[in-house]
Amino acid sequence: MGKNLLDLKSLEVSEIHSILEQAQAFHDGEVFHGLEGRVAANLFFEPSTRTQYSFNMAECKLGLRVISFNPAGSSLQKNESFYDTVKTFDSFGTDLLVIRHVENEYYNQLLGHVNAKILNGGDGTGNHPTQSLLDLLTIRQEFGRFEGLRVAIIGDVSHSRVAHTNFEVMQRLGMEVCTSGPEEYMEEGMHFKPFEEAVRQSDVVMLLRVQHERHAEHMHLTVEQYHDRYGMDRNKLAWLKEGAIIMHPAPFNRGVEIADDVVECDRSRIFKQMNNGVFVRMAAIKRALCD
Amino acid sequence: MGKNLLDLKSLEVSEIHSILEQAQAFHDGEVFHGLEGRVAANLFFEPSTRTQYSFNMAECKLGLRVISFNPAGSSLQKNESFYDTVKTFDSFGTDLLVIRHVENEYYNQLLGHVNAKILNGGDGTGNHPTQSLLDLLTIRQEFGRFEGLRVAIIGDVSHSRVAHTNFEVMQRLGMEVCTSGPEEYMEEGMHFKPFEEAVRQSDVVMLLRVQHERHAEHMHLTVEQYHDRYGMDRNKLAWLKEGAIIMHPAPFNRGVEIADDVVECDRSRIFKQMNNGVFVRMAAIKRALCD
Amino acid sequence: MGKNLLDLKSLEVSEIHSILEQAQAFHDGEVFHGLEGRVAANLFFEPSTRTQYSFNMAECKLGLRVISFNPAGSSLQKNESFYDTVKTFDSFGTDLLVIRHVENEYYNQLLGHVNAKILNGGDGTGNHPTQSLLDLLTIRQEFGRFEGLRVAIIGDVSHSRVAHTNFEVMQRLGMEVCTSGPEEYMEEGMHFKPFEEAVRQSDVVMLLRVQHERHAEHMHLTVEQYHDRYGMDRNKLAWLKEGAIIMHPAPFNRGVEIADDVVECDRSRIFKQMNNGVFVRMAAIKRALCD
Repeated sequence: MGKNLLDLKSLEVSEIHSILEQAQAFHDGEVFHGLEGRVAANLFFEPSTRTQYSFNMAECKLGLRVISFNPAGSSLQKNESFYDTVKTFDSFGTDLLVIRHVENEYYNQLLGHVNAKILNGGDGTGNHPTQSLLDLLTIRQEFGRFEGLRVAIIGDVSHSRVAHTNFEVMQRLGMEVCTSGPEEYMEEGMHFKPFEEAVRQSDVVMLLRVQHERHAEHMHLTVEQYHDRYGMDRNKLAWLKEGAIIMHPAPFNRGVEIADDVVECDRSRIFKQMNNGVFVRMAAIKRALCD
Repeated sequence: MGKNLLDLKSLEVSEIHSILEQAQAFHDGEVFHGLEGRVAANLFFEPSTRTQYSFNMAECKLGLRVISFNPAGSSLQKNESFYDTVKTFDSFGTDLLVIRHVENEYYNQLLGHVNAKILNGGDGTGNHPTQSLLDLLTIRQEFGRFEGLRVAIIGDVSHSRVAHTNFEVMQRLGMEVCTSGPEEYMEEGMHFKPFEEAVRQSDVVMLLRVQHERHAEHMHLTVEQYHDRYGMDRNKLAWLKEGAIIMHPAPFNRGVEIADDVVECDRSRIFKQMNNGVFVRMAAIKRALCD
Repeated sequence: MGKNLLDLKSLEVSEIHSILEQAQAFHDGEVFHGLEGRVAANLFFEPSTRTQYSFNMAECKLGLRVISFNPAGSSLQKNESFYDTVKTFDSFGTDLLVIRHVENEYYNQLLGHVNAKILNGGDGTGNHPTQSLLDLLTIRQEFGRFEGLRVAIIGDVSHSRVAHTNFEVMQRLGMEVCTSGPEEYMEEGMHFKPFEEAVRQSDVVMLLRVQHERHAEHMHLTVEQYHDRYGMDRNKLAWLKEGAIIMHPAPFNRGVEIADDVVECDRSRIFKQMNNGVFVRMAAIKRALCD
């Protein structure tokens, strides 16, 4: 009767493949009319452009009706809680709740208390399942397989829900994943490699955003030093293996983790990832409301 | 040719019953296709979660197209007036204007100047007709009648549009309504009873929100004192008559007018009220554009 | 294969007439189903009521699905750039991007980099093509022609994209255009006339908004002095030629460039302009996606 999508680690590999196949079918032009008129509420308690609006786009393409919650004009201003806000939208009878919230695993407090299906649009530093799925779809389109591919995740690994979710699922799918970047961003047990080595050996170089707003105070490097040591620029492109690609979940900082002229270079799949985001979200919605 | 819904006091009892019957029909699954493609503009000049988004949900379910006004990104920032903003949306040819504004009876300045039908989503401390209608629908579902029921409205009666609207209409429908709460919140002529007596005698205990943001400075009680004296908690639940229910227009303050574990207890109809809100708003929209 | 609408100066006169004819047909009730299900993203990086929501209305009337970008809840808060934000929406596969941005000719950086059609909803002090088109439609409805009509543009000409766009296109369509207002607002080569003369001789008196928020500090007049010298009030209405009309792009300042009781007087076409805005935007959308 439909399934939430809260994280990827609780999904079987076969289920991940099945979501990706449906996403690829939507990418290839499949049209699905079975959800027309159903109602989705997009509840983003934290700023978002890509996740929020590509869910919106996915909902549009599937013919859902969309309610876009605007926290600034809501009863959050009267101190209404996260739980009570979500319960309100559920009480309306919405079919789908797409949620982003700062608290890790916020969804645990909702399970058993809401009837709508929940799609996690990012919880704190925890999970971001549709982001990982769009990364996987992009890799699958590029290489036709996961098994044996080498991936380097570069940057602020410790604060990144993308890094955590990808590290787990990519290994499970048979990829070899390492991490690199400034020491203070690294995490135990996540296969650290020196930056140049990581880049030279990888099929996929996945850059992460330097999240100035969360912890500028903790970074022992200036922006220039970061760019010099860990930023992907024209010179470092030469290190890439034949066929290797650059990815980034965005928003990216031009001139920090990626040089301005690398964003749209032929190695970059950054805007392709955004395009794929629509299709994996369509697949996640179909799975939530139909499967 | 369709009717505004500005307050309840100008509606005949028969008209109120007719709206409630239509709402109940929508609750029971009636589908209505006659408004598909019509355009509603939701103009909330004050924060709102329940009213704003349950109108949005109601519009979705009736197949209307929805324009959601965001004051923060509008010409209000250039000092455009309330009247001129509303006239603008009316000039676009929208069929329906759903409005919340801080000024009591704001709609008087609009009547005769706009072509669209107006549904009042709350005016200052005055009226909130769809909130009262959803309260009535909830009571009707519970007791099957209004005549002879006893209702206690508890809390900040003087600043509450819900209290004012309900006090008038409930008496007209044959209910016996009293009010209770701190002296500084009470109003002349609204049948004050001591709190415990009010709770023990009532079929419906309707709690109101302590509106910290409007008048914390006037309250002579701490939050703890308020909760102790007037907050509905597990102990005071024992005072309730058999079959009595608890209602609250929300947002509620857990631990102030209602204890955390009472919100979803078997006496509470709080989330049921939110659900009914969608159906009374569907009925109000149908009445505005079809009747 | 569809056409952007970035400015009017690059459009042939015949093309302008063709847009106006389509707009008039929509005004007269033409219904067009050819765009149902297509997706428009409205990206307003500056506050807007009329332009933003009348595009929204136009999209609703044409059956498009609409994504409304809210800058305050977006990755702009994480310093994502204008270009990258627009590219994101383009990557989603939206058909149409309606954009307002503070930078003059912001669209030059987008051309060749986005697949969606772009409709300019206002760029800095530069262009505002759909505003001019709705002005032209209103004039065409009133006089049945452009040739030989006299137009006075009054007020803050130098900072007004409306003034610049209209000045160019109206002359090209055969109208005689002059400007008037305080010296510090006037621009070389824009046919200055003393205020009373300008008003007395014109068929169309187009008032501009005194943009307090942009340059109050530069105005050498008090609000009262401005209203007295350049504000259209009951007394100055007597100066108008028979059949002359008053227009204003809005938002207007009641009591500054226009007296309260002139806004809705029989000479004023201000709310008619807003109504026409929906139809020219429908025409612009159809041209962008179908022609």
